Amino acid sequence: MSTIEKKLLETRSNMQALQTAKPAVIKAVLKDIADALVAQSGKILTANRKDLAKMNPQNSLYDRLLLNEARLSGIAGSIQKVIRLKDPTNQTLTQRQLENGLQLKKITTPLGVVAAIFESRPNVVADIATLCLKSRNACVLKGSKDAAHTNKAIVNIIHQSLEKNGLPKSLVYLLPPERSVVDILFQATRTIDVIIPRGSNGLIEYVRSHSRVPVIETGAGVCHVYIHKDADIQMGIDIAVNAKTQRPSVCNAMDTLLVDEAIAKKFLTSLRQPFEEKQVVMHGDTKSMALLKEYPLIKKANADTYATEFLSLACAVKVVKNIEEALVHIEKYGTRHSEAIVTRNKKAAEKFLNTVDAAAVYHNASTRFTDGEEFGLGAEVGISTQKLHARGPFALEKLVTEKWMLRGSGQIR
Amino acid sequence: MSTIEKKLLETRSNMQALQTAKPAVIKAVLKDIADALVAQSGKILTANRKDLAKMNPQNSLYDRLLLNEARLSGIAGSIQKVIRLKDPTNQTLTQRQLENGLQLKKITTPLGVVAAIFESRPNVVADIATLCLKSRNACVLKGSKDAAHTNKAIVNIIHQSLEKNGLPKSLVYLLPPERSVVDILFQATRTIDVIIPRGSNGLIEYVRSHSRVPVIETGAGVCHVYIHKDADIQMGIDIAVNAKTQRPSVCNAMDTLLVDEAIAKKFLTSLRQPFEEKQVVMHGDTKSMALLKEYPLIKKANADTYATEFLSLACAVKVVKNIEEALVHIEKYGTRHSEAIVTRNKKAAEKFLNTVDAAAVYHNASTRFTDGEEFGLGAEVGISTQKLHARGPFALEKLVTEKWMLRGSGQIR
Repeated sequence: MSTIEKKLLETRSNMQALQTAKPAVIKAVLKDIADALVAQSGKILTANRKDLAKMNPQNSLYDRLLLNEARLSGIAGSIQKVIRLKDPTNQTLTQRQLENGLQLKKITTPLGVVAAIFESRPNVVADIATLCLKSRNACVLKGSKDAAHTNKAIVNIIHQSLEKNGLPKSLVYLLPPERSVVDILFQATRTIDVIIPRGSNGLIEYVRSHSRVPVIETGAGVCHVYIHKDADIQMGIDIAVNAKTQRPSVCNAMDTLLVDEAIAKKFLTSLRQPFEEKQVVMHGDTKSMALLKEYPLIKKANADTYATEFLSLACAVKVVKNIEEALVHIEKYGTRHSEAIVTRNKKAAEKFLNTVDAAAVYHNASTRFTDGEEFGLGAEVGISTQKLHARGPFALEKLVTEKWMLRGSGQIR
Repeated sequence: MSTIEKKLLETRSNMQALQTAKPAVIKAVLKDIADALVAQSGKILTANRKDLAKMNPQNSLYDRLLLNEARLSGIAGSIQKVIRLKDPTNQTLTQRQLENGLQLKKITTPLGVVAAIFESRPNVVADIATLCLKSRNACVLKGSKDAAHTNKAIVNIIHQSLEKNGLPKSLVYLLPPERSVVDILFQATRTIDVIIPRGSNGLIEYVRSHSRVPVIETGAGVCHVYIHKDADIQMGIDIAVNAKTQRPSVCNAMDTLLVDEAIAKKFLTSLRQPFEEKQVVMHGDTKSMALLKEYPLIKKANADTYATEFLSLACAVKVVKNIEEALVHIEKYGTRHSEAIVTRNKKAAEKFLNTVDAAAVYHNASTRFTDGEEFGLGAEVGISTQKLHARGPFALEKLVTEKWMLRGSGQIR
């Protein structure tokens, strides 16, 4: 057995300490972590500068890796919010007496040991560890080499806080940053209950295709805003501009704008100025190209355009005949993340809400709301685009499994 | 695009017809299937005899493949029970107004297209298809070559019933029985939402390691009955005998009997006669071997014994020092299926129920109760030993996913 396998077993064997800890103890651990992130910011920032020194500041990951006092306070603030969330474990889901007298009860329990594999952002260490501790899951963290010193400094603080409150520090285990260790995780079906990849599509796809341990995917979003013929034009403009430009780098931003033929001219004409102000590049089909020929940032859509998650100030545009064509397009190209219709027509809205197969469907609102905090669930591990276990914001309430308990008096079949 | 991929797309594109069908229509389809299985039993039995003619009657699969009037009536009876279950879709899970006025609602919706891959038993075709239709999921069925004629005859009846009630027959699509078609399923992430393998561990493992489509596993059970020092001896005997012998071929049967040292002599001595009557082979550790030396069917346990799912009239036996050793043993060897403690000591019972990591944990009852029907959930697809989505009996209520619906009046972030 390798050192890492031994450490994983140690983490697993201590799971019980967390599952039976008093709520006040868990609260104290989380509070101590939040306080220490601010009080010991010097140590963390020193470690962070070591990591940054190895990276070219022109690298797009540089800003993601960078910590400062303000960002540490932000992380501490998020932990304070997690403290206030309800413990999702030990909730009774079902309770009844069977005819044979067996007392049947189904409760929520922690998943057990949760492993997270993530890329440069150091806030992920604190986010995942605190969500896991709050839900009484032990966790195993695998960060990137780029952030190795920073991650270690943050985990040191988590370890201090665990030990200060009488819990074993192995409950949060930071793996060495070498890529090869993930192969051990992928085979660890007896010690790890679920693996959560957080980062690029490449990472998620790699984990999904190699792991024997179940994976919870937080996938890409190719999100549509559909302007129906009965839309309030100004509302449609506001929603399209918000969904595309308020934070273009995230998964719930708009990627494709679908516009009904009947109002395409009026709508696209009105959209020109606000989109030009924000410098949005539009990739159009033939019909929208014709209507937008004077728009300076128009490009011709190609075969890949409608399957693209842009993550930038660019989007696809398509003129559709009617709601049926819009629904077919979304079924073909959507990634089942977030989809919106803008219309004053209630029947069309209900048809859209019921037919579209996605984690979150909107009527007259921006797709940007798909988020654990916005939905009132607190911090999230990511947005799940899978259909099993968790769909949409994957928040604290889903870091649990179920357990059937049966209390009898000698029942046999 | 291959013919099979086109057929899968056709199945998917008709999903909506099922999702919007009136409850009475779905009920009529199921009733017609149940009636026709009996009324047209001749056709099915003729097809079944064609399949049986190709198999050696000595093959252990022969009896599984065999249909007769009584078995068809049994299948029809199961369908009648499914009809009476509650539609698990369109249930409201969460509903509230967010501060910004957005009306948030989380509902259950069908998974979409469910694929099942299974071995010889022809009842699986009817079971899975009717559970899927009841939960408004389209389904794709891949049976074995051995049962090809029988499966086709049953699916013909399902198709008749769908068409008679105005629904497209492509909602239930029987794939050709060639093994190579499963590779198309494994890659069909856009058309299939979940794959359920039903059969041997080999099949389940093959699907799990090759499928890019999410898999719901119904795994093996290495189940323990632990006789605590404060057990009622007679109750312990009754439970051990029932858990091992009432139906030894199933996953929730007992595989290992753990006995506290303090009562090992008394308990094992009392167990001899009932186990010998049922001809149960016991594989013992050194301590239990010493106590059972006069038992004619005793064998010495080896390195694999405690990880074995026997599925026959055989089990492992081990004498443990105390509950702690029992818990460590179960954590090491259990497959997180069903585990039982027999004791009059409430504290020990609660410790066991809370600590053991398994789908179903029992105090003073047989592990044989882990079953959808027994738990009052109706027919099941299998017993899930995974922690995500469904744990324990995987019944109708879990053949759904969730969808967030947000109704607004122009909300943007």
